Amino acid sequence: MSSFIPAQSDDVSIATIRALAADVVTKANSGHPGAPLGMAPVAWVLFSRFMNLNPKNSKWFNRDRFVLSNGHACALQYVLLHLLGYKLSMDDLKAFRQLDSLTPGHPEAGHTDGVEVTTGPLGQGFGNGVGLAVAQAHLAAVFNRPGFDLINNYTYVFTGDGCLMEGVASEAASLAGHLQLGNLIVIYDDNHISIDGDTNLAFTENVAGRFQSYGWQVLRVKNGDTDLPAIFEAIAEAKLEKNKPTLIQLTTTIGFGSKQQGTHGVHGSPLKADDIRALKAKFGLPDQSFYVSPAVYGACAEIGQRGAATEVQWNALLSQYAQKYPELHSELVRRIAGDLPQNWEKALPTYTSKDAAQASRKLSEITLTALAPVLPELLGGSADLTSSNLTKVKGSVDFQPPSTGLGDYSGTYIRYGVREHGMGAIANGIHAYGGIIPYVSTFLNFVSYAAGAVRLSALSGHQVIWVATHDTIGLGEDGPTHQPIETAIHFRATPNLAFWRPADGNETSAAYMVALKSKKTPSILSLSRQNLPNLEGSSIEKASRGGYVVHEVEREDLTIVSAGSEVSIALEAAAKLASGGIRTRIVSLPCWFVFDQQSEDYRLRVLRSGAPILSLEALSTAGWAKYSHEQYGLSSWGASGPYQKVYEKFGITGSNIAVIGKKVVEFYKQQGGPVVSPLVKAFTV
Amino acid sequence: MSSFIPAQSDDVSIATIRALAADVVTKANSGHPGAPLGMAPVAWVLFSRFMNLNPKNSKWFNRDRFVLSNGHACALQYVLLHLLGYKLSMDDLKAFRQLDSLTPGHPEAGHTDGVEVTTGPLGQGFGNGVGLAVAQAHLAAVFNRPGFDLINNYTYVFTGDGCLMEGVASEAASLAGHLQLGNLIVIYDDNHISIDGDTNLAFTENVAGRFQSYGWQVLRVKNGDTDLPAIFEAIAEAKLEKNKPTLIQLTTTIGFGSKQQGTHGVHGSPLKADDIRALKAKFGLPDQSFYVSPAVYGACAEIGQRGAATEVQWNALLSQYAQKYPELHSELVRRIAGDLPQNWEKALPTYTSKDAAQASRKLSEITLTALAPVLPELLGGSADLTSSNLTKVKGSVDFQPPSTGLGDYSGTYIRYGVREHGMGAIANGIHAYGGIIPYVSTFLNFVSYAAGAVRLSALSGHQVIWVATHDTIGLGEDGPTHQPIETAIHFRATPNLAFWRPADGNETSAAYMVALKSKKTPSILSLSRQNLPNLEGSSIEKASRGGYVVHEVEREDLTIVSAGSEVSIALEAAAKLASGGIRTRIVSLPCWFVFDQQSEDYRLRVLRSGAPILSLEALSTAGWAKYSHEQYGLSSWGASGPYQKVYEKFGITGSNIAVIGKKVVEFYKQQGGPVVSPLVKAFTV
Repeated sequence: MSSFIPAQSDDVSIATIRALAADVVTKANSGHPGAPLGMAPVAWVLFSRFMNLNPKNSKWFNRDRFVLSNGHACALQYVLLHLLGYKLSMDDLKAFRQLDSLTPGHPEAGHTDGVEVTTGPLGQGFGNGVGLAVAQAHLAAVFNRPGFDLINNYTYVFTGDGCLMEGVASEAASLAGHLQLGNLIVIYDDNHISIDGDTNLAFTENVAGRFQSYGWQVLRVKNGDTDLPAIFEAIAEAKLEKNKPTLIQLTTTIGFGSKQQGTHGVHGSPLKADDIRALKAKFGLPDQSFYVSPAVYGACAEIGQRGAATEVQWNALLSQYAQKYPELHSELVRRIAGDLPQNWEKALPTYTSKDAAQASRKLSEITLTALAPVLPELLGGSADLTSSNLTKVKGSVDFQPPSTGLGDYSGTYIRYGVREHGMGAIANGIHAYGGIIPYVSTFLNFVSYAAGAVRLSALSGHQVIWVATHDTIGLGEDGPTHQPIETAIHFRATPNLAFWRPADGNETSAAYMVALKSKKTPSILSLSRQNLPNLEGSSIEKASRGGYVVHEVEREDLTIVSAGSEVSIALEAAAKLASGGIRTRIVSLPCWFVFDQQSEDYRLRVLRSGAPILSLEALSTAGWAKYSHEQYGLSSWGASGPYQKVYEKFGITGSNIAVIGKKVVEFYKQQGGPVVSPLVKAFTV
Repeated sequence: MSSFIPAQSDDVSIATIRALAADVVTKANSGHPGAPLGMAPVAWVLFSRFMNLNPKNSKWFNRDRFVLSNGHACALQYVLLHLLGYKLSMDDLKAFRQLDSLTPGHPEAGHTDGVEVTTGPLGQGFGNGVGLAVAQAHLAAVFNRPGFDLINNYTYVFTGDGCLMEGVASEAASLAGHLQLGNLIVIYDDNHISIDGDTNLAFTENVAGRFQSYGWQVLRVKNGDTDLPAIFEAIAEAKLEKNKPTLIQLTTTIGFGSKQQGTHGVHGSPLKADDIRALKAKFGLPDQSFYVSPAVYGACAEIGQRGAATEVQWNALLSQYAQKYPELHSELVRRIAGDLPQNWEKALPTYTSKDAAQASRKLSEITLTALAPVLPELLGGSADLTSSNLTKVKGSVDFQPPSTGLGDYSGTYIRYGVREHGMGAIANGIHAYGGIIPYVSTFLNFVSYAAGAVRLSALSGHQVIWVATHDTIGLGEDGPTHQPIETAIHFRATPNLAFWRPADGNETSAAYMVALKSKKTPSILSLSRQNLPNLEGSSIEKASRGGYVVHEVEREDLTIVSAGSEVSIALEAAAKLASGGIRTRIVSLPCWFVFDQQSEDYRLRVLRSGAPILSLEALSTAGWAKYSHEQYGLSSWGASGPYQKVYEKFGITGSNIAVIGKKVVEFYKQQGGPVVSPLVKAFTV
């Protein structure tokens, strides 16, 4: 193990990071100086001595990944990115937390060069880090060959007490231990302070013991404020452990250097002018705001040059790999670029109405089985509901540590355990790594457990596909504890999230097609437990527009718009209404998000004026008024029982919907006047 | 420590529980026989030797609480409840998982006599158990007196591997250890099987080590299948430890007695007829369905009699207490009954428009400060955001183990740590105990972390009040990672959940008033970080109807309906519109749930026909079409910056809304014809 060689620039660099972070927060008059002041030394040791990175090409594939799970400490990250030469100027630092700046209040991936994942909501970054490590292990197992250790980076995560209290981090940590992710190194800023005050108030567990119980190596650094050699040695030792993730418990003083150091007063409030002045004096810096000496810039430039040289070497290795393994090479290049293979869509199953009725979870399994051979970038998994979600392709190998004898890291199926939130955060990390399209699964109702991760997926543009089965009261006997009511509208209202409820086989294929093409949008595929007939009017092409007329009628008296398992019930109602002389069109609207992106002309042809539109869904009606005049659904919790009986209880049957439809038609006749589509609006936002 | 005295009825009782549970699942052809077969011995030892309960009065206040966190094993619970003489007949058992039966697919509190909390969604029951234990500790500290150990029950939780993988349980467990809850005993069914198969697939952590790290006592029973004395001794030992919660790691064989025992095949599928026959033969029972021998009923009746006698003793003690401590006694009786003190509402602050603008989180603090002296049943807390949520009443004492020196169990403020989901589940448990109204707090955005607990709160009717601050882009600098967009509609679409967005002081008081009166409904109070003016047209009475006209105008051209921090912006817009000759009414709609309960006549007066209605909210517009013709809000994520700038960016200012309002008026003029209120509907569900 190499040992720490001090450099002249170390102290001044650390002092500069501290002073800059304090300046950044004070200028914004908003933000968190405490953790940056405390973690500046470990950040410096990590970036100056260990991180493989190229600031001039922040997307170099084999770079080490850095995650700031305690994202409120982002002044630290922004300062580092600036000093190292990423696309972040001093002016950007000065615009910290200002509107439309590159330095928002918490780090946002895709927004700021060099930020790997979006953090701030506590615990998420920890989970992302596990995902980044999973992705590295997987791609290494798939692509590395003797002499070609192409993919061998480490993932480093900074975390605070807050993240470690969060269940999402606990879940991810337990799985990381099980998966023996030796490439994951988490540095825990053990500063004994959270917002409420001393951690003695609420967080007195033995963190080291807990992580050892998860199967982690735990190392300690007693003086994280100044003992650079100890920090160095801990990281070096962590890198040597190949079969366990490592937690480095680093004792620091929050707000080190401030008059308020060691108190929660310094956690989330800017330092006062005199405090900053004293701090700079203490560290031997000039009394100047946003000051960086040439020596510090010089030291940082060297780090960048070292990284650039490493990338050059790596590119040379990649060229040799291209010679020796041309097919693997082109596959790796394709996957790094995120391109799908040509003609992959041809593998999507299609159906006619003569095909047997099947549950859409089963249709999903058929689709995954058809896609797995052509899309090796699919890395699936379930939160311990594999046999219910039907997400494991037959013959696929588990992603497992080889020593378990249960699979290996090249395997494409992850056993997430009953850890929905951790699964979501890990999947975000897997996608952030690149080269992989993760899909994850649980019951739709329990996607809500992972809401924190799902919203970050959508905010950051992670292409994560949720296979969310058992999606309404149609799951039957498990009852209201498991029956989503509010869930669909929750996710439909989430920006940049495609929530799909396919009605049959073609719609299921369409949902997968659009989800797989949407590189920057997560999708939730809400699927039925019960069998659904294949519709006469469906096709992949039509459904891929998010909404379409599945049963056309001219001069209709009524349109029923529905989604998922209720579309066939709407069709039953239409048949009954037709026999009573009420001409009824049926529109299937499997995905609001995608439908809303269609041209106004198209949308107004689908949901046209002229007759009332009734929505039907076995969920809360909330939100449907956007697409309909009248809404039928559930206004209460569901019930436990065989699913047909539960549907009957809530009136979601062809015959009851026919009765409702008739009421709607009569009501609008009485009202008189033209019936205008709800899509006709005074303005658009 | 007493030791186990075997009874003749033990073996046959355990065999009967196993056989009945198998019968129940097989008759339903749906359910989970595995855990009931495995946990029948521990259930029998616990209920026959330890539990203080009175089946004839399942609400006896000092009963021991039993929680089946692995709620899918409910056949076990239903069988026990039946045998012990709760209001659950053999016919009810035969109706397992049938529509409208008393034996739904997972246990539902308030639905089935003797079920303390609703479980099934994994990890929730564990958190509820911690809450039940917190409540016991608190009420004991408040009401017990020397010689009057009135409140001294234990809480017993059954849990499986699934619950222990969930982050919500990890959070609750860590806090329970910190809180030194010696009255909490969790029995972990360590059967090595989850749905995906052997726990080796995903759950290889050292559970005992983890719980010891949390500060728990961990005991082990190696043979939970047959070793009744060892089970007995473990529970007895657990009861002796007064300063730590105990986890009893009980090794069992899932599906014990079935041909498929020890495999995941027996987890969630009914036993076949021949398997049940063999099982009954093995246990010496007749080949008969739903058979209970008189001996077993007799043994169970004895348990009930023992419990009834204990209650008689307790009532006697309570009478003596009434003599010695009349005031405490009447207070305890009041709180057990769940009655609020007379005239408590008089403590609610009221405001006029001359009062200074304040953030609604601050108004909430003022309200809590005013209420705390009159409503001692308020037991508050925050997920480590106390200084932001403003939820700690000045001078209040922390709920802490006395040994910490930081408070004591009579304290009314819980430091939950950064554990939102655990906090939600714990609060549900606290409310389930009785005598306490829990309120909890975090940023609105992070209530989503607790979505799983919130929905169970609403499903079970737990009066939990969420103080959810920082509720829109109005939080400013923290940025889109912290700014709710989809959150309001998520909770508005949840049945039996009152989601409030008060616009000013009177509305904040109204929200608290209604929330505190709603004994069976949870409430989320969505509150601003930024200051809000006190409105001229608001009052507690008006706002308590969920929606009202805050600015009336005759023969209006436009109504703007809004909520929370945007109401004052709507009023600004109305003033601008008025100066341009457009007569604009303003409706404040702080709580959809409460407004929807008002008479049709009232609602149609508030949101009347005759002029277009425009909704305004700095959140997703999803759902607002129910109350308006046109909707203004956010269709994307927010942004980091000073809040006024962020509002401007998204056009949520008086002047821009005036422009939009004008467009709406012109649009509807062009359309011609009468404008009908969106509340006028063809049918009601």
